[in-house]
Amino acid sequence: MKVDVVLLPHDLQAEDLAGKSVIVFDVLRATTTMTAALSSGVNEIRIFGELDAAMAVARSFSGPHLLCGERHAVKPPGFDLGNSPGVFAPSLHRGLTLFMATTNGTRAIVTAAGAGVLFVAGLVNAGPAAEALIRTGQDVTLLCSGTEGEVSLEDVLGAGAVIEALSDRSQISLQSDRARMAQLLFRGQRQDLLSALTGSRGGQNIVRAGLTPDIAFCANLDSLAAVGVVNGTSPIVTCWEPK
Amino acid sequence: MKVDVVLLPHDLQAEDLAGKSVIVFDVLRATTTMTAALSSGVNEIRIFGELDAAMAVARSFSGPHLLCGERHAVKPPGFDLGNSPGVFAPSLHRGLTLFMATTNGTRAIVTAAGAGVLFVAGLVNAGPAAEALIRTGQDVTLLCSGTEGEVSLEDVLGAGAVIEALSDRSQISLQSDRARMAQLLFRGQRQDLLSALTGSRGGQNIVRAGLTPDIAFCANLDSLAAVGVVNGTSPIVTCWEPK
Repeated sequence: MKVDVVLLPHDLQAEDLAGKSVIVFDVLRATTTMTAALSSGVNEIRIFGELDAAMAVARSFSGPHLLCGERHAVKPPGFDLGNSPGVFAPSLHRGLTLFMATTNGTRAIVTAAGAGVLFVAGLVNAGPAAEALIRTGQDVTLLCSGTEGEVSLEDVLGAGAVIEALSDRSQISLQSDRARMAQLLFRGQRQDLLSALTGSRGGQNIVRAGLTPDIAFCANLDSLAAVGVVNGTSPIVTCWEPK
Repeated sequence: MKVDVVLLPHDLQAEDLAGKSVIVFDVLRATTTMTAALSSGVNEIRIFGELDAAMAVARSFSGPHLLCGERHAVKPPGFDLGNSPGVFAPSLHRGLTLFMATTNGTRAIVTAAGAGVLFVAGLVNAGPAAEALIRTGQDVTLLCSGTEGEVSLEDVLGAGAVIEALSDRSQISLQSDRARMAQLLFRGQRQDLLSALTGSRGGQNIVRAGLTPDIAFCANLDSLAAVGVVNGTSPIVTCWEPK
């Protein structure tokens, strides 16, 4: 199984997607939040690159739903929830539909829509994500969302965690020094992911927004079992189930 | 002192150069080889982006000189030396002028010609390079040469080694997750730089070329004291001397 890492959506080439299993990482916080929502029984998450679009579609939706997302790390006016992964609980959220728009992660998902199979993951489900990749049997692209067009430390760590989990379970061939760097970075930091995430640019934004507990949730390696899979040109994330 | 890392010459912006102290890293092997040559008393190294240009200028040079460089990791036809850092010795090379053209490093130097002060360095002189940066008193850009347009693990490690050496000696402010990633990557690998370099794409190219001992030379942290400084629009590297 060939495995490569793409550091930014801007760097994505058509050959990184076609016939590949792709994972999008926005570890702080969108893809972690999606994983947490699915783990609490949220039925599906409809993904939007822009706030207005999410709001307009949610307004015309008749089923039980919540509108969630962020701009500049905080809940936008009129939204039900921000982008904090720790708020979800089966008693509150089972069976709901989420409408979600964030700054980096949801846009990266829209960019990767041409993938053979498209997943979302974080540090919280690196092991389950690796198992899903192995079940698809395709070569792998690990796509880091970045932060406003710049490489994000936490997303590279997420990609490294999945590479490490893949290499524990399967024969893999790393296709670039980007992938080698991600794996070595994760190995060096796996005992202290929280301090790496807290020191990152995205982590500092979250601290400034007064949402520090979110970082610990996102740094909690393999704490969740769900893996989100993305389908449709208006992307919808649901729980991946092995066929 | 503000410190940033640029992962590829292609990503370099004018503001990364103007008024900044810039270090170019081509750890495997050009900037390591330059450092080794200067440490053995080579007088100056004239830098060329292309083999033909280096050869033509060398031919018309009357002083004692050698033509060195590589394409596809090996010595080009008609060149005196390849790009191996271990060949230099004061008894053989003191006072010589080198004419040098390589695939990645010399081109990165040409790209960075607008810097306030421009250095070359590797893992072999990370500490002395950090001291030179502190003496200049300017903000810092650490420029990775990459390998044929792709991020190189070894150059990011070199940048991380200089960041670590700077942070041991001075107050620094990392300007991006690229810089944080470089520092954390170095910290995780500093006890086994040789295996990281051997596993990299550039390292594998060197192994295939039958030049494996070069990798150990390049991985030998702080083994050399010289720091090369680049001057002129037809760049010439000489030993940096604090004013």
